[in-house]
Amino acid sequence: MGSLVGVLLAATSGVALAPAAPARQSVSELLAGASPADWRPLDPNNTLYLELASGRVVIELAPQFAPLHVANIRTLAAAHYFDGLAIVRVQDNYVVQWADPDGRRPVPPTVTKVAAEFDSAIPAHLPFTPLPDGDVYAPRVGFSDGFPVALDTRHDRMWLLHCYGMVGVGRDDDAESSGTELYAVIGHAPRHLDRNVALVGRVVSGIEHLSSLPRGSDAMGFYAKSETPVPIRALELAADVPTAQRSDLEVLRTDSKLFEDVIEARRNRPEEWFRTKAGRIDVCNVPIPVRAHPSAPTAPAP
Amino acid sequence: MGSLVGVLLAATSGVALAPAAPARQSVSELLAGASPADWRPLDPNNTLYLELASGRVVIELAPQFAPLHVANIRTLAAAHYFDGLAIVRVQDNYVVQWADPDGRRPVPPTVTKVAAEFDSAIPAHLPFTPLPDGDVYAPRVGFSDGFPVALDTRHDRMWLLHCYGMVGVGRDDDAESSGTELYAVIGHAPRHLDRNVALVGRVVSGIEHLSSLPRGSDAMGFYAKSETPVPIRALELAADVPTAQRSDLEVLRTDSKLFEDVIEARRNRPEEWFRTKAGRIDVCNVPIPVRAHPSAPTAPAP
Repeated sequence: MGSLVGVLLAATSGVALAPAAPARQSVSELLAGASPADWRPLDPNNTLYLELASGRVVIELAPQFAPLHVANIRTLAAAHYFDGLAIVRVQDNYVVQWADPDGRRPVPPTVTKVAAEFDSAIPAHLPFTPLPDGDVYAPRVGFSDGFPVALDTRHDRMWLLHCYGMVGVGRDDDAESSGTELYAVIGHAPRHLDRNVALVGRVVSGIEHLSSLPRGSDAMGFYAKSETPVPIRALELAADVPTAQRSDLEVLRTDSKLFEDVIEARRNRPEEWFRTKAGRIDVCNVPIPVRAHPSAPTAPAP
Repeated sequence: MGSLVGVLLAATSGVALAPAAPARQSVSELLAGASPADWRPLDPNNTLYLELASGRVVIELAPQFAPLHVANIRTLAAAHYFDGLAIVRVQDNYVVQWADPDGRRPVPPTVTKVAAEFDSAIPAHLPFTPLPDGDVYAPRVGFSDGFPVALDTRHDRMWLLHCYGMVGVGRDDDAESSGTELYAVIGHAPRHLDRNVALVGRVVSGIEHLSSLPRGSDAMGFYAKSETPVPIRALELAADVPTAQRSDLEVLRTDSKLFEDVIEARRNRPEEWFRTKAGRIDVCNVPIPVRAHPSAPTAPAP
């Protein structure tokens, strides 16, 4: 494969350092030197498993940003509302959406439309790791508790960002929504959706099971009648899954010094391959590293 | 499907206008009112067809930005260099790459590594439609001849941008490259690659044949030995394909007033669904509309 390796190294790993450059480490080198305290486990009460034939999609929920919608989604998951429903829409460079294709599945009575959760007041002690390079859409961007976030301190508002892998709640022309239709971003960040939808979480593992699905051929990527919607085996809260069948994942703490170093290593790639160091980074290009817990058994997925 | 329609309308079509808003049109309404002069045909000498089992990927070449690499690619296509080779790498949220998996295919003797074409001097009469909202990575961004471009007028440099669908030339640690390894962007714009790779074109149709491919499970998305690389039936210049088998596509002129209106309709979506108008746009979120030539026969793809 010889000369193919170039772009690869550039993309994610890279080892060789430019001789004259200050000693800097690549992301993989930084992570190799992480301490256990740099990582946090996923909270089973804030973790969804979307089970497809091809594998499991792990979603971390963000109740701190959308408590009403996350409560609804927990109720829907506990009622097995999504089990046997389907992915109904795959629009290239945009979103994958899942819902009830026939509209016949009974919705638990406590799940009703709740108030819009497009943005919220900034709490007094928000963990926030800012980015230094500005943003096209928002006054200030960075990370909080593992999620990409914008802050508008002048108006005391914060909101989650539509980066790749973020999960939101489909809605009609009402601002309110319930959570019975969910979508994940599988393309260039559609940031115009920010503050128009309740974002409720982020895919931390298995996004490829969504992003590589066949695109729907109807308008806006909905599957046509001649196409088979992709069945959902189950959508469950991790806490409701036996411990042995959980995905024992850890996420790098975004309030750690190590995460700041990761950002720097991405703003200015130390790998020799890069002839022009960007010196800047877009919020949706910052990786949020995830790993299997070092002591986790490598159990086969259910 | 009732309530599913919300996000859809928001995404691409939308008809209802907010009553109090100034009369503004959505992108689809604008395009419905386009005149024939707003569109330009693809030049068969600057158009590549990448033929896969699932269909055709149409790539518009950009010789005005990378003349040496485009000349090599034309030679490779004429020699049928890529026919029977394979897609060897599919990395989620990043790139699809195609090349010679075995490294055994003879390269035409006139195709050698050429000088880096990462950026170039700004010509005297560059067609350029600027964007007004800034950019995280470059001093100024906009569109030229249908391609997303950055300008640095202080240093008299311009370069193409790694937006979704852009096609570039893989290289090793040398800055020079030949064009025997090509890739297309299938994720959030990896703008840190700007000015590190010769970008040579853009997928104008059929990107879904690349973006929905199974991801490779080896490092950096390369297909593992146990996985079958996706065969390339042919990579040909449109000019070398019989007229009846060509894809008769037209691209909206990016130096037209209509394209400026498209940008505005995307900066501030007129659709009622949007509660918060972004008022801004990232260069890689601007659509460059493509259509079948109105008089084109709907011939089956070869």
